[in-house]
Amino acid sequence: MPLSHVRDSIHQMAGYVPGEQLNDPSVVKLNTNENPYPPSPRVFEAVRAALTGDRLRKYPSPMGDSFRQAAGRVLDIDPDSILIGNGSDDILTILTRTFVPERGKIVSPTPSYILYRSLAEIQGANFEMVPFTPEWMPPKPWPIRDANITFFPNPNSPSGTALRAAELERLAREVGGPFVLDEAYGDFAEENGLKLVGKVPNVIITRSFSKFYALAGIRFGFAVADPPVVHELLKVKDSYNCDVLSLAAATAAIEDQDYYADLRSRILASRGRLTVGLTELGFRVTPSQANFVWCRHEKPLKPIYESLKERKILIRYMNYTGYGDGLRITVGTPAEVDRLLMELRKVV
Amino acid sequence: MPLSHVRDSIHQMAGYVPGEQLNDPSVVKLNTNENPYPPSPRVFEAVRAALTGDRLRKYPSPMGDSFRQAAGRVLDIDPDSILIGNGSDDILTILTRTFVPERGKIVSPTPSYILYRSLAEIQGANFEMVPFTPEWMPPKPWPIRDANITFFPNPNSPSGTALRAAELERLAREVGGPFVLDEAYGDFAEENGLKLVGKVPNVIITRSFSKFYALAGIRFGFAVADPPVVHELLKVKDSYNCDVLSLAAATAAIEDQDYYADLRSRILASRGRLTVGLTELGFRVTPSQANFVWCRHEKPLKPIYESLKERKILIRYMNYTGYGDGLRITVGTPAEVDRLLMELRKVV
Repeated sequence: MPLSHVRDSIHQMAGYVPGEQLNDPSVVKLNTNENPYPPSPRVFEAVRAALTGDRLRKYPSPMGDSFRQAAGRVLDIDPDSILIGNGSDDILTILTRTFVPERGKIVSPTPSYILYRSLAEIQGANFEMVPFTPEWMPPKPWPIRDANITFFPNPNSPSGTALRAAELERLAREVGGPFVLDEAYGDFAEENGLKLVGKVPNVIITRSFSKFYALAGIRFGFAVADPPVVHELLKVKDSYNCDVLSLAAATAAIEDQDYYADLRSRILASRGRLTVGLTELGFRVTPSQANFVWCRHEKPLKPIYESLKERKILIRYMNYTGYGDGLRITVGTPAEVDRLLMELRKVV
Repeated sequence: MPLSHVRDSIHQMAGYVPGEQLNDPSVVKLNTNENPYPPSPRVFEAVRAALTGDRLRKYPSPMGDSFRQAAGRVLDIDPDSILIGNGSDDILTILTRTFVPERGKIVSPTPSYILYRSLAEIQGANFEMVPFTPEWMPPKPWPIRDANITFFPNPNSPSGTALRAAELERLAREVGGPFVLDEAYGDFAEENGLKLVGKVPNVIITRSFSKFYALAGIRFGFAVADPPVVHELLKVKDSYNCDVLSLAAATAAIEDQDYYADLRSRILASRGRLTVGLTELGFRVTPSQANFVWCRHEKPLKPIYESLKERKILIRYMNYTGYGDGLRITVGTPAEVDRLLMELRKVV
């Protein structure tokens, strides 16, 4: 009977379907853009140190003070401009609830992260998409300026393409309303928008620990915004949205930049190998600034995805209205890239 | 500038203020109803076992399958009736977003958990309170039947009082709309409402791991509802709302019922000592079925709270419109109870 009380916007929505999470360890998992390498050894030390009865039985720090101090130091920003989240999806939800009323408007480019539509549906808001140009650039001028939130992922998924900071600044000024630069993959890119916070008043940045920091398992992300905006966002977040072990892990990770600079080099090198290998097999690969590549082929793509799945390699097949389909492939280890290319040679 | 785009309902709200979390280990912390004992040793083993590079770098199970299987077995319920949450506050948020439209109505008894008001404000909904009788019973008949959600905590905070299952059933049928039985403290009570799920169609139960399971630090809670209702709630929750270490901890905890039955006995014994001690000092103590007690005194209460704070004992001073004030004191260890009573003897 509570079923009849479910809000229409919820009842009618299909629900966001995340990429498949298989438990089979023999599967090569290149479908959800996880880091193929383990997190920093310091993460393990920090979690073990936090694993005490007293820490577990007590509530964690509501604001994540230690993390904010560490991130502020590493990124050279004001700790008061940081809001912690239970994954960057939590941050995107908090932003939506802060800025978007029922029947409000959420805008994102397309093809892009499909969660933005779900966020609009859950909030009972309208969702409008602005098609990228064929070169994965935003149209000039940006056509919608009355959105309650404009989500702009940079680098974008599924394309892996990224705008330069100067272009981001121009776009942010053009959009006008709250402009959320979703930098879930920002640490892999050549440039990011961090310096725009405070400089361009409507810019809010979101970051994830699930990709670059190899910590998808612990759910951590954060936002960077002007401190008075953070003050409003705080009212919307759950008081204790991040747990004591995740906070310990994230703090240790962001402090070990040397370790992650090394992972980044390795992933960018693998991305190069993957791009060359796919191109040799006739794929048209979009130049990527993220830890995945987007590619298309003259042959039908869905059977390629399915054949790979039969061969225990999971990638992502995506199909966007008004654009068409493509394959999004996470950059794995060199061995995983070789295995993928070997199987693709049989399949294509 | 995004400030001017913040929704009015958010901008105007004060924000929920959680109990103070002090880092000073010399403070006796009896203000946020944490368990004074550490969690089960099995929790530590389970977290250590989950602490691998592969588990950390990959996304966790979206549904928390292992936890749902374990909880289903322990509680003798259908695993498909369980929804996992990042603390029971996450569950309360998911329920609010599923059932309550903007300008909808949330109802709870008063004095009660003040987060319900914040949930209404964040959602842009109206909040109405139904006063308990002087005996902490709901009025008969329950006066509001058109709420989008009625939150009813049992045991209630701050009173610690609880209705019996038969009374809960009568109340649930009377309320009509979605009736959320918030059993954050349910494991300490003599009876609970679990058997009402499925029997009374509008009942949804929420549980927390922050109190009984001594795991406030890891943020875990769950809801029990009819599976078709869970299907709707799933659309609203973040795909990966619980992390791999919290899931491991919660699963190990719920499987170790023997350990927690022992903690429960100890806490109920301390609660008895605390109740007697406070009564001897002239406090009127409400008989509690939770891990805290609610008390009042003929002397002004706020100075008592403040004097205790100076003496490094934190309790909760609360003041409710239309009811007045009182002190909520968490049941600590026997040593903590003795220390509290010793200081109170000087203060009162």
